[in-house]
Amino acid sequence: MKDREKIPKATIERLPLYYRCLDKMSTFEDVDVVSSKDLGGKLDIPSTQVRKDLSYYGEFGRRGVGYNVNELKRSVGKILGVNRTWPAALVGAGNLGRALVNYGSFKMMGLEITCVFDNDLDKIGNVINDREVKSVQDMPGKVEKNNIKLGIISVPADAAQTVADLMVEAGIKAIWNFAPTRLYVPEDVSVKNEDLAVGIVSLIYHLSWQEEMDV
Amino acid sequence: MKDREKIPKATIERLPLYYRCLDKMSTFEDVDVVSSKDLGGKLDIPSTQVRKDLSYYGEFGRRGVGYNVNELKRSVGKILGVNRTWPAALVGAGNLGRALVNYGSFKMMGLEITCVFDNDLDKIGNVINDREVKSVQDMPGKVEKNNIKLGIISVPADAAQTVADLMVEAGIKAIWNFAPTRLYVPEDVSVKNEDLAVGIVSLIYHLSWQEEMDV
Repeated sequence: MKDREKIPKATIERLPLYYRCLDKMSTFEDVDVVSSKDLGGKLDIPSTQVRKDLSYYGEFGRRGVGYNVNELKRSVGKILGVNRTWPAALVGAGNLGRALVNYGSFKMMGLEITCVFDNDLDKIGNVINDREVKSVQDMPGKVEKNNIKLGIISVPADAAQTVADLMVEAGIKAIWNFAPTRLYVPEDVSVKNEDLAVGIVSLIYHLSWQEEMDV
Repeated sequence: MKDREKIPKATIERLPLYYRCLDKMSTFEDVDVVSSKDLGGKLDIPSTQVRKDLSYYGEFGRRGVGYNVNELKRSVGKILGVNRTWPAALVGAGNLGRALVNYGSFKMMGLEITCVFDNDLDKIGNVINDREVKSVQDMPGKVEKNNIKLGIISVPADAAQTVADLMVEAGIKAIWNFAPTRLYVPEDVSVKNEDLAVGIVSLIYHLSWQEEMDV
Protein backbone atom coordinates (compact mmCIF):
# COMPACT_ATOMS: atom_id res chain seq x y z
CA MET A 1 0.00 0.00 0.00
CA LYS A 2 1.14 3.53 -0.74
CA ASP A 3 1.79 6.03 1.99
CA ARG A 4 -1.77 6.92 3.01
CA GLU A 5 -1.02 10.60 3.20
CA LYS A 6 -0.17 10.67 -0.49
CA ILE A 7 -3.46 9.20 -1.64
CA PRO A 8 -5.61 11.87 -3.32
CA LYS A 9 -8.66 13.09 -1.42
CA ALA A 10 -10.82 12.45 -4.48
CA THR A 11 -9.79 8.80 -4.43
CA ILE A 12 -10.75 8.46 -0.78
CA GLU A 13 -14.12 10.04 -1.53
CA ARG A 14 -14.78 7.53 -4.30
CA LEU A 15 -14.07 4.48 -2.11
CA PRO A 16 -17.46 4.59 -0.33
CA LEU A 17 -19.15 4.70 -3.73
CA TYR A 18 -17.29 1.57 -4.82
CA TYR A 19 -18.13 -0.05 -1.51
CA ARG A 20 -21.86 0.64 -1.75
CA CYS A 21 -21.95 -0.49 -5.34
CA LEU A 22 -20.08 -3.73 -4.59
CA ASP A 23 -22.34 -4.37 -1.63
CA LYS A 24 -25.45 -3.97 -3.79
CA MET A 25 -23.98 -6.23 -6.46
CA SER A 26 -23.22 -9.01 -4.00
CA THR A 27 -26.46 -8.68 -2.05
CA PHE A 28 -29.11 -7.92 -4.63
CA GLU A 29 -27.67 -8.76 -8.01
CA ASP A 30 -25.78 -11.92 -7.17
CA VAL A 31 -22.80 -10.87 -9.30
CA ASP A 32 -19.52 -12.75 -8.72
CA VAL A 33 -17.05 -10.93 -10.93
CA VAL A 34 -17.02 -7.34 -12.14
CA SER A 35 -14.72 -5.46 -14.52
CA SER A 36 -13.42 -1.98 -13.79
CA LYS A 37 -15.48 -0.87 -16.79
CA ASP A 38 -18.75 -2.25 -15.36
CA LEU A 39 -18.03 -0.96 -11.87
CA GLY A 40 -17.11 2.46 -13.23
CA GLY A 41 -20.11 2.42 -15.57
CA LYS A 42 -22.54 2.09 -12.68
CA LEU A 43 -21.00 5.11 -10.98
CA ASP A 44 -20.15 7.28 -13.96
CA ILE A 45 -16.43 6.95 -13.26
CA PRO A 46 -13.98 6.04 -16.09
CA SER A 47 -12.53 2.52 -15.79
CA THR A 48 -8.98 3.93 -15.81
CA GLN A 49 -9.88 5.96 -12.73
CA VAL A 50 -11.35 2.92 -10.98
CA ARG A 51 -8.14 0.95 -11.59
CA LYS A 52 -5.96 3.86 -10.50
CA ASP A 53 -7.96 4.44 -7.30
CA LEU A 54 -7.74 0.79 -6.27
CA SER A 55 -4.07 0.51 -7.21
CA TYR A 56 -3.17 2.89 -4.37
CA TYR A 57 -4.17 0.16 -1.96
CA GLY A 58 -2.67 -2.90 -3.58
CA GLU A 59 -3.25 -5.44 -6.30
CA PHE A 60 -6.87 -6.42 -6.74
CA GLY A 61 -8.47 -8.46 -9.49
CA ARG A 62 -6.92 -10.13 -12.48
CA ARG A 63 -6.13 -8.49 -15.78
CA GLY A 64 -8.67 -9.54 -18.41
CA VAL A 65 -10.89 -11.24 -15.82
CA GLY A 66 -11.97 -8.55 -13.38
CA TYR A 67 -12.51 -8.32 -9.66
CA ASN A 68 -14.14 -10.87 -7.42
CA VAL A 69 -17.04 -8.83 -6.04
CA ASN A 70 -17.01 -10.24 -2.50
CA GLU A 71 -13.25 -10.12 -2.12
CA LEU A 72 -13.06 -6.56 -3.39
CA LYS A 73 -15.94 -5.50 -1.16
CA ARG A 74 -14.17 -6.96 1.87
CA SER A 75 -10.88 -5.30 0.92
CA VAL A 76 -12.44 -1.88 0.31
CA GLY A 77 -14.45 -2.25 3.52
CA LYS A 78 -11.27 -2.92 5.44
CA ILE A 79 -9.52 0.07 3.87
CA LEU A 80 -12.48 2.25 4.82
CA GLY A 81 -12.63 0.89 8.35
CA VAL A 82 -16.28 -0.09 7.94
CA ASN A 83 -15.51 -3.76 8.69
CA ARG A 84 -16.05 -2.93 12.35
CA THR A 85 -18.66 -0.83 14.15
CA TRP A 86 -17.88 2.70 15.29
CA PRO A 87 -20.10 3.97 18.08
CA ALA A 88 -21.15 7.60 17.74
CA ALA A 89 -22.67 10.24 20.01
CA LEU A 90 -25.32 12.48 18.45
CA VAL A 91 -26.24 15.87 19.88
CA GLY A 92 -29.46 17.49 18.67
CA ALA A 93 -32.62 15.37 18.76
CA GLY A 94 -34.72 17.54 16.43
CA ASN A 95 -36.20 16.27 13.17
CA LEU A 96 -32.83 15.86 11.50
CA GLY A 97 -31.28 14.17 14.53
CA ARG A 98 -34.22 11.78 14.75
CA ALA A 99 -33.96 11.05 11.03
CA LEU A 100 -30.27 10.23 11.44
CA VAL A 101 -30.86 7.93 14.43
CA ASN A 102 -33.52 6.09 12.42
CA TYR A 103 -31.54 5.98 9.17
CA GLY A 104 -31.14 2.35 8.21
CA SER A 105 -28.06 2.41 6.00
CA PHE A 106 -25.48 3.66 8.49
CA LYS A 107 -24.86 0.28 10.06
CA MET A 108 -23.58 -1.12 6.78
CA MET A 109 -21.10 1.72 6.73
CA GLY A 110 -19.86 0.85 10.22
CA LEU A 111 -21.68 3.62 12.08
CA GLU A 112 -23.88 3.04 15.09
CA ILE A 113 -25.38 6.00 16.91
CA THR A 114 -25.27 4.63 20.46
CA CYS A 115 -26.30 7.70 22.43
CA VAL A 116 -28.39 10.81 21.78
CA PHE A 117 -28.32 14.14 23.62
CA ASP A 118 -30.26 17.39 23.65
CA ASN A 119 -30.60 20.40 25.94
CA ASP A 120 -34.36 20.71 25.41
CA LEU A 121 -36.27 19.44 28.45
CA ASP A 122 -39.15 18.46 26.17
CA LYS A 123 -36.87 16.09 24.29
CA ILE A 124 -34.83 14.65 27.15
CA GLY A 125 -36.34 11.32 28.16
CA ASN A 126 -37.90 10.63 24.74
CA VAL A 127 -36.94 7.37 23.09
CA ILE A 128 -35.74 7.29 19.48
CA ASN A 129 -35.05 3.91 17.94
CA ASP A 130 -34.51 2.38 21.42
CA ARG A 131 -32.18 5.16 22.54
CA GLU A 132 -33.24 7.47 25.34
CA VAL A 133 -32.43 11.13 24.75
CA LYS A 134 -30.17 12.33 27.60
CA SER A 135 -29.19 15.78 28.72
CA VAL A 136 -26.24 17.21 26.82
CA GLN A 137 -24.54 17.65 30.20
CA ASP A 138 -24.19 13.87 30.36
CA MET A 139 -22.46 13.72 26.99
CA PRO A 140 -18.80 14.22 27.98
CA GLY A 141 -18.96 11.55 30.69
CA LYS A 142 -20.68 9.05 28.41
CA VAL A 143 -18.22 9.69 25.57
CA GLU A 144 -15.19 9.28 27.82
CA LYS A 145 -16.52 6.20 29.56
CA ASN A 146 -17.33 4.42 26.30
CA ASN A 147 -14.27 5.67 24.44
CA ILE A 148 -16.45 7.13 21.67
CA LYS A 149 -14.41 8.83 18.95
CA LEU A 150 -17.19 9.92 16.59
CA GLY A 151 -19.60 12.80 17.19
CA ILE A 152 -22.59 13.95 15.15
CA ILE A 153 -23.89 17.50 15.50
CA SER A 154 -27.47 18.24 14.45
CA VAL A 155 -28.17 21.36 16.51
CA PRO A 156 -28.91 24.89 15.24
CA ALA A 157 -25.92 26.80 13.82
CA ASP A 158 -25.51 29.07 16.84
CA ALA A 159 -25.13 26.15 19.26
CA ALA A 160 -22.82 24.03 17.12
CA GLN A 161 -19.44 25.41 18.23
CA THR A 162 -20.25 24.94 21.93
CA VAL A 163 -21.21 21.33 21.27
CA ALA A 164 -18.07 20.78 19.20
CA ASP A 165 -15.88 22.16 22.02
CA LEU A 166 -17.52 19.81 24.53
CA MET A 167 -17.04 16.89 22.17
CA VAL A 168 -13.37 17.63 21.57
CA GLU A 169 -12.73 17.99 25.29
CA ALA A 170 -14.36 14.62 25.90
CA GLY A 171 -12.06 12.94 23.38
CA ILE A 172 -14.08 12.92 20.14
CA LYS A 173 -11.70 12.77 17.14
CA ALA A 174 -14.12 13.02 14.21
CA ILE A 175 -17.18 15.25 13.91
CA TRP A 176 -19.94 14.95 11.34
CA ASN A 177 -21.47 18.41 11.31
CA PHE A 178 -25.00 19.02 9.98
CA ALA A 179 -25.23 22.55 11.38
CA PRO A 180 -24.78 25.09 8.57
CA THR A 181 -21.72 26.71 10.11
CA ARG A 182 -17.98 26.24 10.14
CA LEU A 183 -16.48 24.62 13.23
CA TYR A 184 -13.09 25.41 14.71
CA VAL A 185 -11.38 22.33 16.15
CA PRO A 186 -7.80 21.26 16.96
CA GLU A 187 -5.72 19.83 14.12
CA ASP A 188 -6.04 16.22 15.19
CA VAL A 189 -9.85 16.31 14.95
CA SER A 190 -11.48 15.79 11.54
CA VAL A 191 -14.68 17.58 10.63
CA LYS A 192 -16.98 16.63 7.79
CA ASN A 193 -19.53 19.34 7.03
CA GLU A 194 -22.75 18.06 5.55
CA ASP A 195 -24.44 20.98 3.90
CA LEU A 196 -27.79 19.80 2.60
CA ALA A 197 -28.42 23.00 0.67
CA VAL A 198 -25.47 22.37 -1.63
CA GLY A 199 -27.07 19.18 -2.90
CA ILE A 200 -30.05 20.95 -4.42
CA VAL A 201 -28.07 23.42 -6.45
CA SER A 202 -26.89 21.11 -9.18
CA LEU A 203 -30.52 20.17 -9.80
CA ILE A 204 -31.62 23.79 -9.93
CA TYR A 205 -28.75 24.52 -12.29
CA HIS A 206 -30.01 21.84 -14.67
CA LEU A 207 -33.63 23.00 -14.37
CA SER A 208 -32.71 26.58 -15.03
CA TRP A 209 -30.66 25.58 -18.07
CA GLN A 210 -33.51 23.41 -19.35
CA GLU A 211 -35.99 26.28 -19.09
CA GLU A 212 -33.61 28.51 -21.00
CA MET A 213 -33.46 25.96 -23.81
CA ASP A 214 -37.25 25.61 -23.86
CA VAL A 215 -37.82 29.33 -24.33
CA MET B 1 -20.05 31.91 -22.05
CA LYS B 2 -18.85 28.52 -23.20
CA ASP B 3 -21.24 25.91 -24.48
CA ARG B 4 -22.82 24.74 -21.22
CA GLU B 5 -22.61 21.09 -22.18
CA LYS B 6 -18.84 21.31 -22.32
CA ILE B 7 -18.40 22.64 -18.79
CA PRO B 8 -16.95 19.93 -16.51
CA LYS B 9 -19.29 18.42 -13.93
CA ALA B 10 -16.73 19.11 -11.20
CA THR B 11 -16.85 22.83 -12.05
CA ILE B 12 -20.63 22.86 -11.77
CA GLU B 13 -20.39 21.12 -8.40
CA ARG B 14 -17.97 23.75 -7.11
CA LEU B 15 -20.23 26.68 -8.07
CA PRO B 16 -22.57 26.25 -5.05
CA LEU B 17 -19.53 26.25 -2.77
CA TYR B 18 -18.37 29.55 -4.26
CA TYR B 19 -21.87 30.92 -3.95
CA ARG B 20 -22.27 30.00 -0.28
CA CYS B 21 -18.85 31.35 0.53
CA LEU B 22 -19.48 34.66 -1.28
CA ASP B 23 -22.84 34.97 0.43
CA LYS B 24 -21.26 34.51 3.86
CA MET B 25 -18.55 37.02 3.01
CA SER B 26 -21.01 39.68 1.95
CA THR B 27 -23.50 39.02 4.75
CA PHE B 28 -21.40 38.26 7.81
CA GLU B 29 -17.88 39.41 7.09
CA ASP B 30 -18.55 42.62 5.23
CA VAL B 31 -15.88 41.90 2.64
CA ASP B 32 -15.98 43.93 -0.61
CA VAL B 33 -13.25 42.41 -2.72
CA VAL B 34 -11.79 38.93 -2.70
CA SER B 35 -8.90 37.36 -4.60
CA SER B 36 -9.11 33.92 -6.18
CA LYS B 37 -6.46 32.88 -3.67
CA ASP B 38 -8.56 33.93 -0.66
CA LEU B 39 -11.77 32.49 -2.07
CA GLY B 40 -10.01 29.23 -2.89
CA GLY B 41 -8.27 29.21 0.49
CA LYS B 42 -11.56 29.21 2.35
CA LEU B 43 -12.72 26.20 0.36
CA ASP B 44 -9.50 24.28 -0.03
CA ILE B 45 -9.55 24.81 -3.78
CA PRO B 46 -6.39 26.04 -5.61
CA SER B 47 -6.68 29.62 -6.92
CA THR B 48 -5.89 28.43 -10.46
CA GLN B 49 -8.92 26.16 -10.26
CA VAL B 50 -11.13 29.01 -9.00
CA ARG B 51 -10.10 31.20 -11.95
CA LYS B 52 -10.56 28.36 -14.42
CA ASP B 53 -14.02 27.46 -13.08
CA LEU B 54 -15.25 31.04 -13.30
CA SER B 55 -13.69 31.61 -16.72
CA TYR B 56 -16.13 29.11 -18.27
CA TYR B 57 -18.88 31.62 -17.60
CA GLY B 58 -17.25 34.87 -18.61
CA GLU B 59 -14.86 37.53 -17.40
CA PHE B 60 -15.15 38.31 -13.72
CA GLY B 61 -12.88 40.38 -11.52
CA ARG B 62 -9.81 42.36 -12.40
CA ARG B 63 -6.29 41.00 -12.63
CA GLY B 64 -4.27 42.01 -9.57
CA VAL B 65 -7.35 43.40 -7.81
CA GLY B 66 -9.74 40.51 -7.36
CA TYR B 67 -13.46 40.01 -7.53
CA ASN B 68 -16.15 42.31 -6.22
CA VAL B 69 -17.89 40.02 -3.73
CA ASN B 70 -21.44 41.20 -4.36
CA GLU B 71 -21.13 41.28 -8.12
CA LEU B 72 -19.58 37.84 -8.26
CA LYS B 73 -22.21 36.47 -5.89
CA ARG B 74 -24.97 37.84 -8.12
CA SER B 75 -23.32 36.44 -11.25
CA VAL B 76 -22.75 32.98 -9.78
CA GLY B 77 -26.28 33.01 -8.37
CA LYS B 78 -27.65 33.77 -11.80
CA ILE B 79 -25.58 31.01 -13.39
CA LEU B 80 -26.88 28.58 -10.79
CA GLY B 81 -30.46 29.70 -11.20
CA VAL B 82 -30.79 30.48 -7.49
CA ASN B 83 -31.62 34.12 -8.19
CA ARG B 84 -35.25 33.06 -8.39
CA THR B 85 -37.34 30.72 -6.25
CA TRP B 86 -38.08 27.21 -7.42
CA PRO B 87 -41.14 25.64 -5.80
CA ALA B 88 -40.76 21.98 -4.89
CA ALA B 89 -43.09 19.13 -3.95
CA LEU B 90 -41.88 16.81 -1.19
CA VAL B 91 -43.23 13.29 -0.73
CA GLY B 92 -42.53 11.54 2.59
CA ALA B 93 -43.32 13.45 5.78
CA GLY B 94 -41.26 11.28 8.15
CA ASN B 95 -38.41 12.63 10.26
CA LEU B 96 -36.19 13.35 7.29
CA GLY B 97 -39.00 14.97 5.29
CA ARG B 98 -39.89 17.18 8.26
CA ALA B 99 -36.24 18.10 8.73
CA LEU B 100 -36.04 19.12 5.06
CA VAL B 101 -39.23 21.22 5.23
CA ASN B 102 -37.83 22.99 8.30
CA TYR B 103 -34.30 23.39 6.94
CA GLY B 104 -33.52 27.08 6.91
CA SER B 105 -30.79 27.32 4.30
CA PHE B 106 -32.69 26.12 1.26
CA LYS B 107 -34.35 29.43 0.53
CA MET B 108 -31.00 31.09 -0.04
CA MET B 109 -30.31 28.43 -2.64
CA GLY B 110 -33.55 29.18 -4.43
CA LEU B 111 -35.54 26.22 -3.13
CA GLU B 112 -38.94 26.48 -1.52
CA ILE B 113 -40.81 23.34 -0.52
CA THR B 114 -44.34 24.52 -1.20
CA CYS B 115 -46.27 21.29 -0.71
CA VAL B 116 -45.80 18.11 1.30
CA PHE B 117 -47.39 14.71 0.74
CA ASP B 118 -47.56 11.34 2.46
CA ASN B 119 -49.68 8.19 2.25
CA ASP B 120 -49.82 7.68 6.01
CA LEU B 121 -53.23 8.66 7.39
CA ASP B 122 -51.53 9.60 10.69
CA LYS B 123 -49.44 12.19 8.90
CA ILE B 124 -51.99 13.58 6.45
CA GLY B 125 -53.44 16.76 7.92
CA ASN B 126 -50.41 17.53 10.11
CA VAL B 127 -48.83 20.92 9.62
CA ILE B 128 -45.07 21.29 9.10
CA ASN B 129 -43.66 24.78 8.88
CA ASP B 130 -47.08 26.15 7.81
CA ARG B 131 -47.59 23.46 5.18
CA GLU B 132 -50.38 20.94 5.59
CA VAL B 133 -49.42 17.38 4.71
CA LYS B 134 -51.74 16.17 1.92
CA SER B 135 -52.45 12.73 0.56
CA VAL B 136 -49.95 11.58 -2.05
CA GLN B 137 -52.94 11.07 -4.36
CA ASP B 138 -53.28 14.84 -4.55
CA MET B 139 -49.66 15.29 -5.62
CA PRO B 140 -49.95 14.96 -9.43
CA GLY B 141 -52.81 17.46 -9.62
CA LYS B 142 -51.04 19.98 -7.40
CA VAL B 143 -47.78 19.64 -9.33
CA GLU B 144 -49.47 20.12 -12.68
CA LYS B 145 -51.62 23.02 -11.52
CA ASN B 146 -48.67 24.91 -10.05
CA ASN B 147 -46.23 23.94 -12.78
CA ILE B 148 -43.81 22.51 -10.21
CA LYS B 149 -40.67 21.08 -11.80
CA LEU B 150 -38.77 19.97 -8.71
CA GLY B 151 -39.61 16.92 -6.59
CA ILE B 152 -38.07 15.67 -3.35
CA ILE B 153 -38.42 12.05 -2.32
CA SER B 154 -37.98 11.15 1.35
CA VAL B 155 -39.93 7.90 1.50
CA PRO B 156 -38.58 4.40 2.28
CA ALA B 157 -36.54 2.75 -0.48
CA ASP B 158 -39.28 0.34 -1.57
CA ALA B 159 -41.76 3.16 -2.24
CA ALA B 160 -39.39 5.53 -4.02
CA GLN B 161 -39.78 4.31 -7.60
CA THR B 162 -43.59 4.50 -7.44
CA VAL B 163 -43.35 8.09 -6.19
CA ALA B 164 -40.79 8.94 -8.87
CA ASP B 165 -43.07 7.54 -11.60
CA LEU B 166 -45.98 9.65 -10.33
CA MET B 167 -43.76 12.74 -10.22
CA VAL B 168 -42.48 12.24 -13.75
CA GLU B 169 -45.99 11.71 -15.07
CA ALA B 170 -47.09 14.95 -13.41
CA GLY B 171 -44.31 16.91 -15.13
CA ILE B 172 -41.49 16.99 -12.56
CA LYS B 173 -38.13 17.44 -14.33
CA ALA B 174 -35.67 17.20 -11.44
CA ILE B 175 -35.79 14.79 -8.50
CA TRP B 176 -33.79 15.06 -5.29
CA ASN B 177 -33.82 11.52 -3.98
CA PHE B 178 -33.10 10.78 -0.31
CA ALA B 179 -34.29 7.18 -0.52
CA PRO B 180 -31.30 4.83 -0.57
CA THR B 181 -32.14 3.32 -3.92
CA ARG B 182 -31.53 4.00 -7.58
CA LEU B 183 -34.41 5.54 -9.54
CA TYR B 184 -35.19 4.89 -13.18
CA VAL B 185 -36.51 7.97 -14.97
CA PRO B 186 -36.71 9.23 -18.58
CA GLU B 187 -33.64 10.92 -20.03
CA ASP B 188 -34.99 14.46 -19.72
CA VAL B 189 -35.44 14.14 -15.94
CA SER B 190 -32.41 14.75 -13.68
CA VAL B 191 -31.98 12.83 -10.46
CA LYS B 192 -29.66 13.76 -7.65
CA ASN B 193 -29.20 10.96 -5.16
CA GLU B 194 -28.43 12.13 -1.65
CA ASP B 195 -26.93 9.19 0.15
CA LEU B 196 -26.34 10.22 3.75
CA ALA B 197 -24.37 7.09 4.55
CA VAL B 198 -21.61 8.02 2.11
CA GLY B 199 -20.84 11.15 4.10
CA ILE B 200 -19.79 9.28 7.21
CA VAL B 201 -17.30 7.05 5.49
CA SER B 202 -14.52 9.55 4.97
CA LEU B 203 -14.62 10.29 8.71
CA ILE B 204 -14.47 6.62 9.61
CA TYR B 205 -11.60 6.22 7.17
CA HIS B 206 -9.65 8.92 8.99
CA LEU B 207 -10.53 7.52 12.43
CA SER B 208 -9.49 4.04 11.45
CA TRP B 209 -6.19 5.33 10.08
CA GLN B 210 -5.59 7.36 13.24
CA GLU B 211 -6.12 4.33 15.46
CA GLU B 212 -3.66 2.35 13.35
CA MET B 213 -1.04 5.06 13.88
CA ASP B 214 -1.72 5.15 17.63
CA VAL B 215 -1.14 1.42 18.08
